[in-house]
Amino acid sequence: MHRYRTHTCAQASPALVGETVRLSGWVHRKRDHGGLLFIDLRDHYGITQVVCDSADPVFPTLESARVESVLTVTGEVVARTPETVNPTLATGAVEVRARAVEVQSTAEVLPILVAGDQEFPEDMRLTYRFLDLRREKVHANMVLRSKVISSLRRRMTDQGFLEYQTPILTASSPEGARDFLVPSRLHPGKFYALPQAPQQFKQLLMVSGFDRYFQVAPCFRDEDSRADRSPGEFYQLDFEMSFVTQEDVFAAIEPVLAGVFEEFGQGREVTPPPFPRIPYDQAMLEFGSDKPDLRNPLRIADVTEAFAGGGFGLFARQIEAGAVVRAIPAPGAAGRPRGWYDKLNEWARESGAGGLGYVVFEEAGPKGPIAKNLQADRVEAIRAQMNLKAGDAVFFACDKMLKAAKFAGQVRERLCDDLGLRETGVFRFCWTIDFPMYELNEDTGQIEFSHNPFSMPQGEMEALETMDPLAIKAYQYDIVCNGIELSSGAIRNHRPDIMYKAFEIAGYPREEVEARFGGMLRAFKFGAPPHGGSAPGIDRIVMLLADEPNIREVILFPMNGQAQDLLMQAPNTVSDKQLKELHIRVAPPVKAVSGDRSSS
Amino acid sequence: MHRYRTHTCAQASPALVGETVRLSGWVHRKRDHGGLLFIDLRDHYGITQVVCDSADPVFPTLESARVESVLTVTGEVVARTPETVNPTLATGAVEVRARAVEVQSTAEVLPILVAGDQEFPEDMRLTYRFLDLRREKVHANMVLRSKVISSLRRRMTDQGFLEYQTPILTASSPEGARDFLVPSRLHPGKFYALPQAPQQFKQLLMVSGFDRYFQVAPCFRDEDSRADRSPGEFYQLDFEMSFVTQEDVFAAIEPVLAGVFEEFGQGREVTPPPFPRIPYDQAMLEFGSDKPDLRNPLRIADVTEAFAGGGFGLFARQIEAGAVVRAIPAPGAAGRPRGWYDKLNEWARESGAGGLGYVVFEEAGPKGPIAKNLQADRVEAIRAQMNLKAGDAVFFACDKMLKAAKFAGQVRERLCDDLGLRETGVFRFCWTIDFPMYELNEDTGQIEFSHNPFSMPQGEMEALETMDPLAIKAYQYDIVCNGIELSSGAIRNHRPDIMYKAFEIAGYPREEVEARFGGMLRAFKFGAPPHGGSAPGIDRIVMLLADEPNIREVILFPMNGQAQDLLMQAPNTVSDKQLKELHIRVAPPVKAVSGDRSSS
Repeated sequence: MHRYRTHTCAQASPALVGETVRLSGWVHRKRDHGGLLFIDLRDHYGITQVVCDSADPVFPTLESARVESVLTVTGEVVARTPETVNPTLATGAVEVRARAVEVQSTAEVLPILVAGDQEFPEDMRLTYRFLDLRREKVHANMVLRSKVISSLRRRMTDQGFLEYQTPILTASSPEGARDFLVPSRLHPGKFYALPQAPQQFKQLLMVSGFDRYFQVAPCFRDEDSRADRSPGEFYQLDFEMSFVTQEDVFAAIEPVLAGVFEEFGQGREVTPPPFPRIPYDQAMLEFGSDKPDLRNPLRIADVTEAFAGGGFGLFARQIEAGAVVRAIPAPGAAGRPRGWYDKLNEWARESGAGGLGYVVFEEAGPKGPIAKNLQADRVEAIRAQMNLKAGDAVFFACDKMLKAAKFAGQVRERLCDDLGLRETGVFRFCWTIDFPMYELNEDTGQIEFSHNPFSMPQGEMEALETMDPLAIKAYQYDIVCNGIELSSGAIRNHRPDIMYKAFEIAGYPREEVEARFGGMLRAFKFGAPPHGGSAPGIDRIVMLLADEPNIREVILFPMNGQAQDLLMQAPNTVSDKQLKELHIRVAPPVKAVSGDRSSS
Repeated sequence: MHRYRTHTCAQASPALVGETVRLSGWVHRKRDHGGLLFIDLRDHYGITQVVCDSADPVFPTLESARVESVLTVTGEVVARTPETVNPTLATGAVEVRARAVEVQSTAEVLPILVAGDQEFPEDMRLTYRFLDLRREKVHANMVLRSKVISSLRRRMTDQGFLEYQTPILTASSPEGARDFLVPSRLHPGKFYALPQAPQQFKQLLMVSGFDRYFQVAPCFRDEDSRADRSPGEFYQLDFEMSFVTQEDVFAAIEPVLAGVFEEFGQGREVTPPPFPRIPYDQAMLEFGSDKPDLRNPLRIADVTEAFAGGGFGLFARQIEAGAVVRAIPAPGAAGRPRGWYDKLNEWARESGAGGLGYVVFEEAGPKGPIAKNLQADRVEAIRAQMNLKAGDAVFFACDKMLKAAKFAGQVRERLCDDLGLRETGVFRFCWTIDFPMYELNEDTGQIEFSHNPFSMPQGEMEALETMDPLAIKAYQYDIVCNGIELSSGAIRNHRPDIMYKAFEIAGYPREEVEARFGGMLRAFKFGAPPHGGSAPGIDRIVMLLADEPNIREVILFPMNGQAQDLLMQAPNTVSDKQLKELHIRVAPPVKAVSGDRSSS
């Protein structure tokens, strides 16, 4: 018989009744029923009930075993009586009569409990993460994460991608977020940086001829923590493809994402590929966001025309000054009390908007301050345009285009929640496409890159040479699920000539482009294929599937909000010898004291 | 028709003759045969010959395309005439008549060539790694590496292991090799460290109840470069299992390794599981090494008895002073000229040995200085013990046990090569087991840990309390392939009481153990399962399969021997702002100048 187990704690079943088995696991729960001791023995796979009566020689050992101690129990599988069968437990039809017990490890009194649903403060949970990780939901989240990643890998491989590891000790990039730095021992005063993403490496892989790359890639950004962002490291499903159009990229990744969400969605509905493609302009109009949550059925409309030169002077004057009016429907809201409208108006003011105008379509006709002033045919035009009926309401956001769009987007989300309209139990995917290549900096009047300067402009060189820069779109796209951006991506600009021109439009002379991006430029001068890709965030995918709002619930050993690993005591002080070897000294921040404004 | 390709450059085949295809790839080679231009167009998958005659409108474009430029070629697949079929090329039965060409990217004059076998200096290769990686062998190595890792993952998953990611930003460990440090922005004067291995995390995962963990784990050691060690990062197949004996660990990993070597060995023979288990003492005796290369058929024997008190005074006196004599057979060496023996003797002296005694068994009887002095019956006893026959020779190493063993091991390897005895085309696996728990430091007279202080001693507490420490073995093992250690591993000591005792024997008081290893100890006090594992080196596995002696040939973007990434220019200087944010200053080493012996 094996020293530790013949079966896992999930395998006890009626088929084994009468057999002697050996199980090993943790004491999950203990119940003493007057001379009869019940122990739920738990391992990674499940729980089996162990039973022993007080006359049994092993009783004292079992009785004295504290919860979370590790035991090896040998005994006979017996059927439970019908009234003691536990249908909520996979092994609940049987139990094991303990005949021999070996204590593998004795647990001290627990600082946090494993069994049960009691909540503990995050710092306690992270300090005793090895206990916290035994808890059912956290344990299940980590198994889910592992299986999701394994499935992503399998699906990428099935699509002809090969996984390659790119360096983790690499160069600091002056762009983007803050780097983590690593002092070099062999090169005094020089530093490696941890990659914020393998962006340059994956493009170099395409230039090296590898065709279809992916990587479950660790990425590092020294940014402050958020609910959806762990301080330090995170993982993305980084991928890149050569000789592809945007549609090829979509066709490659859609079945991977849809497949994984189907596989682990536990019956939740998943958008079937091809996912809807929503141009950026349309997204900003209809959803007031470039991350449309398609679970929200409300669609925004532009109703500027109905207000222009109309009887509602406030809007009419703003329109003359260049504003637009966006309308957000509120189906079935006509019956809501006045207080509901007031509360929304108050929220709008707190959100920085002037207020939130509305029209209520009652059976008797349109009501509210706007309906009083705007001509009836204009009100009717709005109603008809938005397909509203008696019992509905409509809200308005009037401002400069971008502000109006964004605020309308917030109103759309708020109304969706207030009216209980959001679909549940679904994963709604879409692509936002056709992002503008450039935007106008309203402060400086300068043309700037909207997003990624390395994306290929639609129309390529000809567009750059002939079009209004603000009208040029890029082959740049976001993948969005339930309103959460999983990733940006792009068809890259692989042509040095187009790159010089694109940067020139944004005000960068050739020399500066070469100084800042010389590495990539040089590679592109020796035969670069057209290529593109994306990098969906893995932590976010698991958060969605596990239905967890905090990223730390899907990471094994996360740092806390102050970027500390409380279990391993990181970061920590190091020896002078270590610092000397690395040619650095600690220079603590000098606190400004009264009369002393010098700083280190 | 797709903008870039309807087929890859590996798919052109007789089945497509008459069809119009579109291919994209790099200009691998160009040949101009008097008005007929041949271009080998290469992509990740293969090469297809494109042909065009000078009358064709696309001729000027093709003719002017420099090698390694990227082209999209549209044309008709035609069968080659029998005499022009290229049987060495998968697509060699056909070619594509170019009808339209689009230049995707123009290559400048190449600093290193892609086609052909010309060698280039390593620094050039790494600076232009994006070209180097297009070369056939390097490209194939990277694809092999990717497929090996994917296969390892699949095989581990099939064995019930789940992959989990452990933190990369973690705590500095005072033991082991030198850490890479990462200064903390939020905690002035404190540092993260990159993990030398996820050892503590994988043990914590077992304590957390995860049962079977694995990870293709990036590991970081700030050590100088070697042929088999990349400066910076490397990967290991890290795994750990709960409730297992040593044999369970072997049974889990053997099919994984044997399977991968079978899959990618290209017909090379692989040791079938179970792999031979060789106790450490036997390995040191028969192979003179704890990393036996089983391709070498020679076995060392102890012949101390034959020399003790015998006529060969040099050895006899050393034996009296505590030395042993190890004999290394040299089958068929009797016919070697005197110079061969002299050369070996010279090599032995250079290696630090006093010299290399030997006996040659000629048809006429034993010959050589030792045979002259040692009694004939003793010489005959050695011959019989080692099963030597006329035509063979035998060499001797006489020294204190460990030195004699190691030197005999070197002689065994040298003789194997000299005599051409090493098996080729095979992967010979074995386990070295039963490593001693402790060893005597001959300088201090102190008992020290031989290898890993955290391995479980065989016999556990009872052995520690009752046995001579130097006789205690540990559940510690190495996996060896062709004489290369792929990994150490162990059944871990999960019992705080046994750990305190084990450290006490090595001279560590309880408080020191707690101060140094408090984290793991604490975790073990809340219910730890018996567990064990190992971590075969992935770079070494790929080196063996690719038959590459240098680890940099199996890494995509390796650093050079000076720990520099010449392509990305890492490490590099960073801005003062970055340093200030991280609360550090650069403190360059002070060079000792004449009359100034101070250092920083």
